[in-house]
Amino acid sequence: MKSGTILLTGFEPFGGEHINPSWEVARALDGEQVAGARVLAWQLPCVFGAALQSLAKALAQHQPQLVLALGQAAGRSELSVERVAINVDDARIADNQGSQPIDEAVIADAPAAYFSTLPIKSMVAALRVAGYPAGISQSAGTFVCNHVFYGMQHQLAGSAVRSGFMHIPLLPQQAALHPGQPSMALETMITGVRLALGVAWRVRNDVRQGGGTIA
Amino acid sequence: MKSGTILLTGFEPFGGEHINPSWEVARALDGEQVAGARVLAWQLPCVFGAALQSLAKALAQHQPQLVLALGQAAGRSELSVERVAINVDDARIADNQGSQPIDEAVIADAPAAYFSTLPIKSMVAALRVAGYPAGISQSAGTFVCNHVFYGMQHQLAGSAVRSGFMHIPLLPQQAALHPGQPSMALETMITGVRLALGVAWRVRNDVRQGGGTIA
Amino acid sequence: MKSGTILLTGFEPFGGEHINPSWEVARALDGEQVAGARVLAWQLPCVFGAALQSLAKALAQHQPQLVLALGQAAGRSELSVERVAINVDDARIADNQGSQPIDEAVIADAPAAYFSTLPIKSMVAALRVAGYPAGISQSAGTFVCNHVFYGMQHQLAGSAVRSGFMHIPLLPQQAALHPGQPSMALETMITGVRLALGVAWRVRNDVRQGGGTIA
Amino acid sequence: MKSGTILLTGFEPFGGEHINPSWEVARALDGEQVAGARVLAWQLPCVFGAALQSLAKALAQHQPQLVLALGQAAGRSELSVERVAINVDDARIADNQGSQPIDEAVIADAPAAYFSTLPIKSMVAALRVAGYPAGISQSAGTFVCNHVFYGMQHQLAGSAVRSGFMHIPLLPQQAALHPGQPSMALETMITGVRLALGVAWRVRNDVRQGGGTIA
Repeated sequence: MKSGTILLTGFEPFGGEHINPSWEVARALDGEQVAGARVLAWQLPCVFGAALQSLAKALAQHQPQLVLALGQAAGRSELSVERVAINVDDARIADNQGSQPIDEAVIADAPAAYFSTLPIKSMVAALRVAGYPAGISQSAGTFVCNHVFYGMQHQLAGSAVRSGFMHIPLLPQQAALHPGQPSMALETMITGVRLALGVAWRVRNDVRQGGGTIA
Repeated sequence: MKSGTILLTGFEPFGGEHINPSWEVARALDGEQVAGARVLAWQLPCVFGAALQSLAKALAQHQPQLVLALGQAAGRSELSVERVAINVDDARIADNQGSQPIDEAVIADAPAAYFSTLPIKSMVAALRVAGYPAGISQSAGTFVCNHVFYGMQHQLAGSAVRSGFMHIPLLPQQAALHPGQPSMALETMITGVRLALGVAWRVRNDVRQGGGTIA
Repeated sequence: MKSGTILLTGFEPFGGEHINPSWEVARALDGEQVAGARVLAWQLPCVFGAALQSLAKALAQHQPQLVLALGQAAGRSELSVERVAINVDDARIADNQGSQPIDEAVIADAPAAYFSTLPIKSMVAALRVAGYPAGISQSAGTFVCNHVFYGMQHQLAGSAVRSGFMHIPLLPQQAALHPGQPSMALETMITGVRLALGVAWRVRNDVRQGGGTIA
Repeated sequence: MKSGTILLTGFEPFGGEHINPSWEVARALDGEQVAGARVLAWQLPCVFGAALQSLAKALAQHQPQLVLALGQAAGRSELSVERVAINVDDARIADNQGSQPIDEAVIADAPAAYFSTLPIKSMVAALRVAGYPAGISQSAGTFVCNHVFYGMQHQLAGSAVRSGFMHIPLLPQQAALHPGQPSMALETMITGVRLALGVAWRVRNDVRQGGGTIA
């Protein structure tokens, strides 16, 4: 029997940074076996449009059964599992090609949003039990991260492939240059994402556990 | 010619509070003429399900052309215009009837999300120019506020009635009991909401102005 | 019998702002009778050295029995009663004359710090009971505010004149230009400071009530 | 020639925690040679009074030339080098013996404050250059950390022994139980404190580099 494939994407650096923790984590796990599946890392450009074209190529080429896209989130202190992607690009800064769309649809005439099809509550619960700061996020923003998350869910809707998005903090070396920003060690992120991937791969029926916000 | 009606809803107190700024603002504006339309205030219970039944009754009874629902958001410091409502109830605390749904749809087999149909960027721009702290929010949470926002957009989808949601800060007297929480004076909120309602009423084509978040 | 005088100082705008809430509050209360004492407002330049010379002139000219110096604190959401002034100038930005001292003593060969001689716990308690967001602060920073607070306590040490410092939030119109910053309405600040002045004037033995921070 | 000794203290767990990062870091570095000096770790009880007695015993027994006391600071995201200790105990929670002093002097009839005698700006500068999130803090709080910092500076005032305090973040496993709190990996803290100790040992004349706050 053919073993499964997990596609794990990370982004190239953006916003003036010289490193992106999402890609550092992805490439560190590249080739690993997690819960019987093989992890395949893929780097996405931080560019509206081109990021989704790159993702489509990865999906076609590797035919994964599960996809986790990672993205850097300055200001967040935990492994932040996203619940929902919305159909809007509203860029506060320019992407790596200089594009800065405002209030444009990711995909015209498509649904307003897609939910993650990963067991997000199980992932957070397992991470916390294992000692990782983790939580559910109700918004992936409106920049290239949400763009990729939305486009991925749209492309995979109705398929058997399950997919979702996780934001991760800055690395300590990035926070050193941005006083006051929380960070997380690369090793913590790598082992945490490895754990979350295993849970995502094995759990089909998510636990019913609170992860909401009041406002 | 018949003049228009704006429905302005606020919630009863919840979460141990004895007052809810959203209702204080709504009732203060009740009966006012704003940009030629008459404001009608309506109080919603902070109860899943019942809140939407109450809203439906208000819509049927008053036939407004525009609805702005207000909600209290502890921790926020500005007039926070919501962009999108999602189809999920995930209650961190019990509502006023003791109900605490987790990961249930607001409305089964309905779309994942609805966008506000108000000119949210114009509202924020006008508020800031006039000296009010204001911003776009990418998440209305997963409690009764989002529940009402989602249910309202679902009911009014395809109709000519435009609608949206605004979260507002705690009142100073509430923040006095929750050290560290930001607040806003009632008078600031009343005059700010009045201004935003006028903009919402008059502007049909929203301005193209950034209001996104990176993550 | 001669009635008493309260000196209430505020600063001129700094840091690119066109208004300073500390002066707006002070001048609004100028001439008022509070608890039998007359409030006298005095504006200080936001300049190291010159601010203390101006304060010394006010003290000599008006011979107050009590002094409350007010200062603007971006990022704070409450009426923030300072506990202690430290003998250091460490300016993150230049003052209004372009001076930016780093790790210099406010006054050479003087004590490391002075505590407020106002009943800070009573002031906070009274404010909270009356519905004002308020708290004790353990640091007045290291800019001109702390400079004035330290110099004032040094000059008045051993005298019968009691004195202290209160930081206050940005005005809403300032926060409108700095998205995410908390603010407070001018009216809330004026009435809150009036209340705090009355408590400061009347209370000689402060209440024993917690106002500490762990770290 | 006799080599030097650095005393590195950490606290026992408090406030319901089962681990204290300050002690984990101290004991990890126990016995190491740093810049030619030998690090000696010492655990302090999180108890007013007893902590200072324990520290006095360590100082008498080991005769260090330099002391760095470490403490846990929930809510902080960086290696936080304290500038000043103030002569007040104001406990928001009880210490590990149930004592909760309010507005009492650490040491009666002693100065209002003492500054760190370590090169705090050099320590922060070196940490940032090496990729560690770090900063100057203007307040060590009013709990047992500040109590130890103040008592230590008082005891060592006028001696040749240099001393100071550093607050460090929660460990990831602690933050996992306190959603939203920033954290730092133990390894990051250990290597960062090792670096800071080396700088503290070697640098006698601190760099003149900004580390202030406005308010």
